[in-house]
Amino acid sequence: MVYIGIDLGGTGIKIGLVDETGKILCKGETPTGVGRPYEEIIGDMGQCMLKVMGDNGYKADDIAAIGIGIPGIADTDGNVIFCTNMGWKNVPLSAELRKYLDKPVYIDNDATVAGFAEYICGVSAGTHSSVFLTLGTGVGGGIVIGGRPWSGFHGIGSEVGHIPMDIGGVPCTCGNDGCLERYTSATAIIRMGKERMSQYPDSLLNQLCENNPDKLTAKMVFDAAKVNDEAGLRVFNEYVDYLARACYTVITFLDPEVIVLGGGVSKAGDFLLDAVRARIPSYLIFKDLPYSRIEIASLGNDAGIIGAAMLGRPAKEA
Amino acid sequence: MVYIGIDLGGTGIKIGLVDETGKILCKGETPTGVGRPYEEIIGDMGQCMLKVMGDNGYKADDIAAIGIGIPGIADTDGNVIFCTNMGWKNVPLSAELRKYLDKPVYIDNDATVAGFAEYICGVSAGTHSSVFLTLGTGVGGGIVIGGRPWSGFHGIGSEVGHIPMDIGGVPCTCGNDGCLERYTSATAIIRMGKERMSQYPDSLLNQLCENNPDKLTAKMVFDAAKVNDEAGLRVFNEYVDYLARACYTVITFLDPEVIVLGGGVSKAGDFLLDAVRARIPSYLIFKDLPYSRIEIASLGNDAGIIGAAMLGRPAKEA
Repeated sequence: MVYIGIDLGGTGIKIGLVDETGKILCKGETPTGVGRPYEEIIGDMGQCMLKVMGDNGYKADDIAAIGIGIPGIADTDGNVIFCTNMGWKNVPLSAELRKYLDKPVYIDNDATVAGFAEYICGVSAGTHSSVFLTLGTGVGGGIVIGGRPWSGFHGIGSEVGHIPMDIGGVPCTCGNDGCLERYTSATAIIRMGKERMSQYPDSLLNQLCENNPDKLTAKMVFDAAKVNDEAGLRVFNEYVDYLARACYTVITFLDPEVIVLGGGVSKAGDFLLDAVRARIPSYLIFKDLPYSRIEIASLGNDAGIIGAAMLGRPAKEA
Repeated sequence: MVYIGIDLGGTGIKIGLVDETGKILCKGETPTGVGRPYEEIIGDMGQCMLKVMGDNGYKADDIAAIGIGIPGIADTDGNVIFCTNMGWKNVPLSAELRKYLDKPVYIDNDATVAGFAEYICGVSAGTHSSVFLTLGTGVGGGIVIGGRPWSGFHGIGSEVGHIPMDIGGVPCTCGNDGCLERYTSATAIIRMGKERMSQYPDSLLNQLCENNPDKLTAKMVFDAAKVNDEAGLRVFNEYVDYLARACYTVITFLDPEVIVLGGGVSKAGDFLLDAVRARIPSYLIFKDLPYSRIEIASLGNDAGIIGAAMLGRPAKEA
């Protein structure tokens, strides 16, 4: 049996057929076309799914289940409760998609699904417990406990990016102040970079973005830091400190076996990883005791398809 | 079969025999006598345990297991790794106690054990998941997931009191700044109360502690707030806001079915509970969705014995 994994994003819908080990057998993609009625979007999703199956010789009987990772949250009945950048609220995604292929549908948050994929066949494979952090425009979280994704009792947990980190801190899009993602996302790197640009007008940072703060990216900040540009280094060190605090928060609360860093910022690889690993011990209460291993995600963009597909794999096979 | 539960505190060692439903059948107590060699302390523990058994007609064959809640952390081999107020480091508690009664010994953190007791037969009985907060001198945490206590992969988790809550905030005994317990413990209430005393010299707060800040207690602050003393009310409202943030942190990260408030501060009961429940929604991201129920612990001081005893109860009976 194979499992269908669907990665629903604001730009594209990626669909793959995945075997029970997490290996992608074939895949396809269709534009999301945000703004259209949900029936149309889910219709394209269904057609693309059937096309990927047909093009690769799979029939309905070959499919065990469908899993979908969404940039939002869903209830256990397969309804999308909330999906900000799609503009969805209370959309019957499962029921609508089953009109195209009548299989069990499992839906979970995209960060949760990506973390689950890393548990299935990535850097946290087979671990006791893991927390995945997507360091992107915002910060998402994916918790895996006992071989299953954990989204909490009401499905609103693992929102690591919105843990309060600073009283009266940087205002967040969620309405609160000082949320963790205001300090640990790519957006935070850019915000801190812009501040340092005006403080260090002759910095490499300014050169890299042609003195236009609006062109500054997180990668430029890291590139400047790598060659010891002072403005870049200051932002990098500040960011690493915040990220170490975030990891420490996860450790002191949940103490998972592994914390996995994913998302765009994690593409900095060892440059980031080594610095964060070096910074965490200063925060630990129990200095002599082992604590969560920190790793960089290994599956990249495929994590969404793999993790979604594996939502439908029975736990006993895990 | 019955289970022995031991609540190891800095002042006394409380020991009880507990049935498989969490009911205490009989109990005894002996002074801890901190500062003596650990062999002596564990010796008194062992003798007290045998006396409680003998006085109540229980033989070794009646006992299934021994559980111990400690104000520190232990490894899975029964060694106490760290127990600050006992001055213990790497103490072979299990091996030493088995010299008196050779039964399986289970050890866990006292807040974890108290939270587990509430899951067994208290306010969070039979729930999917719960997080227990002991609001005392510091703030301890007890996580229960899937019917078992959760202390993390390395046994250093559930230290909710040390989640970073404010960057550059109030210095903590652990060495970090701005830990959650600096804002949500009884110690925090007293600190904030002292500040308001000097600001409001004619307040009821000052009268209650006879104008001596060193005599101020958390209960006095709450008593003043109850009769609308402005100084007392300001501290109370500030505290409630911090505690609501703490609950929100637990919700947005783990989203348990229930959050249980225990420890000395929780004796304020509905006065505190109603205020915290009213404050939490302002922090929630998903305003329309259900979230963790907030409750006051129901087992009081017996939670330590009950939860410790139940550590040894097979999970399948749960």
